[in-house]
Amino acid sequence: MSLESIQIGFMPPADKVSAENLLQLVAYAQSKGFDYIVSPINSPAYRRVLFEEEEPQNPSLRAWRAGLESFRPEDLVLRTADHSEFIVGTISDWQDFDSQDLKVRLHSELALKQQFNWASHLALGGVMLPYPPSSKPLSNYGRVLTSSISMLPYTACWLRVPCMDDELERNVAEELQGMKSWERWNTILNMAGSQSKLGIALELSATLPTDKVLDRWFAEPVKVVIIPEDIFLTNNKGYPVLSKRHQHVVRKFMRFKPYFMISSSSLPKLTLDEFSDDLLENSLASPHADYLRYLYRTQDTLGVIDQFATGYQDYLQAPLQPLQDNLESSTYETFEKDPIKYQQYELAVERALLDRPVPTDGTPDVTVIMVVGAGRGPLVNCSLRAAEKAGRNVRIYAVEKNPNAFVTIQNMKASLWGDRVNIVFSDMRTWNPPEQADILVSELLGSFGDNELSPECLDGAQKVLKPDGISIPANYTAFVAPMSSNKLHADVSSFKDLTHFETSYVVMFKAISLLAQPKPIWVFEHPNRKDIPLNQNPLSNHHNIRSGSIEFTSKTSGMIHGIAGYFESVLYKDVLLSINPETHSPGMFSWFPIYFPIKTPLYVPAGGQVVLDFWRLTDTRKVWYEWQVSCKVEGLGVIHSSSLHNVGGRSSSIGLY
Amino acid sequence: MSLESIQIGFMPPADKVSAENLLQLVAYAQSKGFDYIVSPINSPAYRRVLFEEEEPQNPSLRAWRAGLESFRPEDLVLRTADHSEFIVGTISDWQDFDSQDLKVRLHSELALKQQFNWASHLALGGVMLPYPPSSKPLSNYGRVLTSSISMLPYTACWLRVPCMDDELERNVAEELQGMKSWERWNTILNMAGSQSKLGIALELSATLPTDKVLDRWFAEPVKVVIIPEDIFLTNNKGYPVLSKRHQHVVRKFMRFKPYFMISSSSLPKLTLDEFSDDLLENSLASPHADYLRYLYRTQDTLGVIDQFATGYQDYLQAPLQPLQDNLESSTYETFEKDPIKYQQYELAVERALLDRPVPTDGTPDVTVIMVVGAGRGPLVNCSLRAAEKAGRNVRIYAVEKNPNAFVTIQNMKASLWGDRVNIVFSDMRTWNPPEQADILVSELLGSFGDNELSPECLDGAQKVLKPDGISIPANYTAFVAPMSSNKLHADVSSFKDLTHFETSYVVMFKAISLLAQPKPIWVFEHPNRKDIPLNQNPLSNHHNIRSGSIEFTSKTSGMIHGIAGYFESVLYKDVLLSINPETHSPGMFSWFPIYFPIKTPLYVPAGGQVVLDFWRLTDTRKVWYEWQVSCKVEGLGVIHSSSLHNVGGRSSSIGLY
Repeated sequence: MSLESIQIGFMPPADKVSAENLLQLVAYAQSKGFDYIVSPINSPAYRRVLFEEEEPQNPSLRAWRAGLESFRPEDLVLRTADHSEFIVGTISDWQDFDSQDLKVRLHSELALKQQFNWASHLALGGVMLPYPPSSKPLSNYGRVLTSSISMLPYTACWLRVPCMDDELERNVAEELQGMKSWERWNTILNMAGSQSKLGIALELSATLPTDKVLDRWFAEPVKVVIIPEDIFLTNNKGYPVLSKRHQHVVRKFMRFKPYFMISSSSLPKLTLDEFSDDLLENSLASPHADYLRYLYRTQDTLGVIDQFATGYQDYLQAPLQPLQDNLESSTYETFEKDPIKYQQYELAVERALLDRPVPTDGTPDVTVIMVVGAGRGPLVNCSLRAAEKAGRNVRIYAVEKNPNAFVTIQNMKASLWGDRVNIVFSDMRTWNPPEQADILVSELLGSFGDNELSPECLDGAQKVLKPDGISIPANYTAFVAPMSSNKLHADVSSFKDLTHFETSYVVMFKAISLLAQPKPIWVFEHPNRKDIPLNQNPLSNHHNIRSGSIEFTSKTSGMIHGIAGYFESVLYKDVLLSINPETHSPGMFSWFPIYFPIKTPLYVPAGGQVVLDFWRLTDTRKVWYEWQVSCKVEGLGVIHSSSLHNVGGRSSSIGLY
Repeated sequence: MSLESIQIGFMPPADKVSAENLLQLVAYAQSKGFDYIVSPINSPAYRRVLFEEEEPQNPSLRAWRAGLESFRPEDLVLRTADHSEFIVGTISDWQDFDSQDLKVRLHSELALKQQFNWASHLALGGVMLPYPPSSKPLSNYGRVLTSSISMLPYTACWLRVPCMDDELERNVAEELQGMKSWERWNTILNMAGSQSKLGIALELSATLPTDKVLDRWFAEPVKVVIIPEDIFLTNNKGYPVLSKRHQHVVRKFMRFKPYFMISSSSLPKLTLDEFSDDLLENSLASPHADYLRYLYRTQDTLGVIDQFATGYQDYLQAPLQPLQDNLESSTYETFEKDPIKYQQYELAVERALLDRPVPTDGTPDVTVIMVVGAGRGPLVNCSLRAAEKAGRNVRIYAVEKNPNAFVTIQNMKASLWGDRVNIVFSDMRTWNPPEQADILVSELLGSFGDNELSPECLDGAQKVLKPDGISIPANYTAFVAPMSSNKLHADVSSFKDLTHFETSYVVMFKAISLLAQPKPIWVFEHPNRKDIPLNQNPLSNHHNIRSGSIEFTSKTSGMIHGIAGYFESVLYKDVLLSINPETHSPGMFSWFPIYFPIKTPLYVPAGGQVVLDFWRLTDTRKVWYEWQVSCKVEGLGVIHSSSLHNVGGRSSSIGLY
């Protein structure tokens, strides 16, 4: 995240803005250091189109209805395109799209379209729609909005949404606060389609809903955050500040760099008298905007992960296929920079060495370590350092199949490692070693643990290990959780084919929300003495088939857009690597989570069960995943389920060769 | 429906069929006039692959698992391709795909695939899968089936499904009987995807579920109907017959021409002794099969509708666009054959004429009738006959815009009508008549009432009508109902684009099931004095905008694949036309219902609410429909909703010019 500034707008009370004071307000906002001002497009006078007399008596309204008459000057606040680059327009709030009165419905629709047309003509940067009151139905509103939004080719369009529901509903249980607000947004978005350009202007309030409820908004296209002036507190120096909770929420939204709007319930003093006492005060920047800029500047210094993540957030990457393809040097270099991962490997090797009994029969104390998939050598270095710390002698073999990486380890041997390390150019699955190993060290894990075929590679390498030898890692477990992310789903949808819905992606998550905590789905252990005969290759790969059916309870209602995948691995005893959010190894950045999309998003009601069915399957040439998501509700059974994704690996698989 | 024969198979008890008696059974079935026999592919011996000792002790099973060993001879009932054209194979029922034991799961999958492979190798016409017991989970079964079905490129594949659930469940309330059976089928179909080639072999039982529950099967791909011998009754001549209820159900399925299977719980006497008393009996055809053929032959003589419908059933047709396109002569001819429609028009005109007061002031008694959209003249003939019956004088104007049809009415005037009829070549909306009409007669209705723009045409024609004149039809109402049809949805899906999901189709429904009775959604009345100034054209078409949000309660669970549309029309007072199933004008065939698909089928639980939101919208050039479907459950709110279909008429519309 760069430190460039955020955009903050000034939103005076809509009913106090008129064509007459607009220029003064613009000048005021500019003097106060705001980046834009929020103004109604129309004056209250325009409401006449809803309530004037019936047509035969009113030829003007008939003509308007037939599209033959435009705005009258008194209908408008924004009469010209002057300063339009400094203005965000708001749509009037008196339309009633779902009225029982057909004329009111029709005229509301025509009025909205006329306002959109005008906003587009003025080239406003954005327009904001009022939130439809929660007492009203939504279907015609959703329909009108969906069909009208294409009238704004260059102007952003935001629906104003309160983060808490109407006052009336504030008395409901804490769990339910702010629920309906999201449900109504979701209804509209669902009508418009997930690829709609409609965004959210989320309005904060003095009382905020629970984190769980707020969390859902991070999976939605929040483009604007509205902060009313009156939720600011005053600190002991007299300056406006936000409560800790509000600071936390605002900072969380700052990651998405939305526009901010400071809304005010009263009009500022607009007539500047050069000689008045107000001069000084008036020429100072807005303390509210200043405070937000201060919050933005003083975000936690970016950690290594965030530096690394810049540009990767919510970007869909294909997982690596290290068996099929040779990794590039830059890929190795990126991963070698991880400050935590190799610390953990070093610690694991050190502990394993210390646990080995020192021979008492006079034979020399030498532990044979084989690093399989040595790459450019970082695990060899770890092993050498570990041996030194543990004070034990080691003989290391470094096995690598990538001819380009092998060049590097040849240099390493020549310049650094010497006789302590034997380098071998071979695929670990087919290598015939001169002796057997005490410790087999590998780094073949993917974001989902087994998704880069660590199980198959280590099964093949296992015959180089002594009967009592150990593998680092000792095991790895895949974790899954149902997740919500309009952004990622829309990105996958944009490919417009089935293949991309049946492919997994490695993604640095940002605009997502987990509907439940991740749960383990399966585990792989090494060495695998049960399925693989001693000193042999496995006869088939059937023992690496896995499946699981995991049930989650969704605490809020939400849309499921797919499955988030993570792994935890035991390297050795209590030395762990984890990208599972609950146990994430602090500071480790080598792995982003994995995202398995589903074709059609599924709604889950609060308290509903989400069932994830997952398979890891194999044939003689490849490994692939299949997945399916269902929702169950007590008393109703399964209320919907996705189709089975990636049947037979038809869309995506990992090649064994 | 042609009278060609149905295919009936003989299904002996699976555990009694062996490689040894197979040929005798084939000969027996042939001698009994069956079209095929149903035999297990494998003998019970094959079950060994699930339960033999673990691998290290059993190299043969390890080899089998690795795909290196095939069937042993004793594993098979069907050992050769002899008579394979006469055999339907059944898959063994001991597989347990969702076992907790991973080995049982894997071996079940491998065994199924091996059987599919063999069935394909033998070129069997069909294979039948056992129904998974309802006590077991389905997810791995569904996954295995979905991925294996492609191994049967030429062989049909049917899942055996009981129409009633397991014995255990028969004690539940009548409403629930047979529910779970469909739910489980739906779960499997949902995994496989609606375009799967998987069909149903529906097994009837002595007790049948309610019509409502049975009805759902007509929307599913039932390819086989299994009738156990022991549900037949014996009539007083000693012959097997079915109960009235069973006859009714079997006849209903005969419309779909499925395969029938007569299943027997005991093996027939196979050793024929030429000199025994059994000879005569044994050489007679199966009385059960004979009875089914008798039911098939004696179906109700095909009515006019069915004759007309041959070839149209479940075929998606684009609705007519009579304003944009000129109808062809054959289209007119088809519609003119309707025996009911013109009877009703004649009656309506007669009643309207009789209701007109005879002038008492000495002016001549002449009623002016204008037929707008006269086509080839059938309504002119109706009006002339009606005048004769009513004993009133008429002066008729026949207005037609289609130059080809106009040729025909010129001939009609010359040869038949003479001075009583004035013919006018014009669009009714722009015609300037020499006098005004007492009665305006038109036949502009589409399957949805207003979908061929009758409202717009009659609005334009209304100025030719006297202030107290009447329109025949006086009004028409559109009806909608949520419907289920895998077939129609799969047909629309096969176009693989959004456009076809946002288009309505005129369809002679067959493989469909309504989830609730149709309800009215909007109405058009003529003449429309409220919105259209006297003797003028309407200023805009806004008054023909309609919308409705209709809620239905679904009495069973089901999948919604779209919306069925119908119309009812009052021609004059109590003279009606209707294609709404509940009030359908008997024998009238001019209109099939209309089908509005939805992109993603939605599941509705039993007792759930289905909300259909529907709009008829207009701009200056066209009229179009938009629609959306949602499901609500009490206490949960909306559990899912479709996107808004056909936004702004982007995929389909009806041109005004």
